[in-house]
Amino acid sequence: MSVTLFLIFLAATFAAGATGALFPTGEWYKRLNKPAWTPPNWAFPIMWTTIYVLIAIAGARVAPLAGNQYAMGFWAVQIALNALWTPVFFGLRRLGASLPVMAFLWLAVLGATITHFRLDFWAGLAFVPYLAWVTVAGALNWSVWRLNPHQKPLEIHKLP
Amino acid sequence: MSVTLFLIFLAATFAAGATGALFPTGEWYKRLNKPAWTPPNWAFPIMWTTIYVLIAIAGARVAPLAGNQYAMGFWAVQIALNALWTPVFFGLRRLGASLPVMAFLWLAVLGATITHFRLDFWAGLAFVPYLAWVTVAGALNWSVWRLNPHQKPLEIHKLP
Repeated sequence: MSVTLFLIFLAATFAAGATGALFPTGEWYKRLNKPAWTPPNWAFPIMWTTIYVLIAIAGARVAPLAGNQYAMGFWAVQIALNALWTPVFFGLRRLGASLPVMAFLWLAVLGATITHFRLDFWAGLAFVPYLAWVTVAGALNWSVWRLNPHQKPLEIHKLP
Repeated sequence: MSVTLFLIFLAATFAAGATGALFPTGEWYKRLNKPAWTPPNWAFPIMWTTIYVLIAIAGARVAPLAGNQYAMGFWAVQIALNALWTPVFFGLRRLGASLPVMAFLWLAVLGATITHFRLDFWAGLAFVPYLAWVTVAGALNWSVWRLNPHQKPLEIHKLP
């Protein structure tokens, strides 16, 4: 595996992951009704860091392989949707609008997992924790949306 | 060119471009000091839509080619950084912190332009308007940051 390629794909995950630091959880999030099975706060950065390293490895392994067009396409889609979700949920507080983002992210990660598996067993395996975690995150997003029907979106552009 | 591949890459640009609709300009942006050469507001969605279609075509042309590993890597990095910039600038109003995002985006687009040109002339050419526009956007970002030293970031997570 090329270290340069690994660092390029890692840079993409870093851009997406930066949203987690830039849009931190606040008091409003603490006050939201959450399901009993909500993972503890400390689990999120650990899971995401692990996932980002794993998918950067997967990208670097699959990028030089012939026939990787769909794998690379899905890799690009998932990272763009990944970068989008956090600002929609934690920035705009749009619990509902973040659900289709999560649904498309889940589909993109599924597509990436399948297409990576077809080319390289280890690259496909590296996407499995991501698919599992996005399933949990999607269920959590859905549950939080249902449990907080009165949470209003933050209309940032209307703020002074 | 595969239409399916085009639509996959277009989906990635759609995720990044959705930030423009989700984080619209508001009164605060109107009130910012801007340089005389600031493009009119209507130019931004037109330019971005054109750029997104062009780079989706470029991605779909280059994805099936052998030796495309760096082109695909840079394609992924630029779309993640592209999705990141708008929430940092228009969401968090961090005029300064959005500058390094823009600088890395510029570098990623330069890398994508060069690596696409090496594989396919038309794919490289399709990235040129993007490189030009990110240069303008970067200069505008820098200028707005310098002209508005008292603009405070919006601490979204501290809002009730």
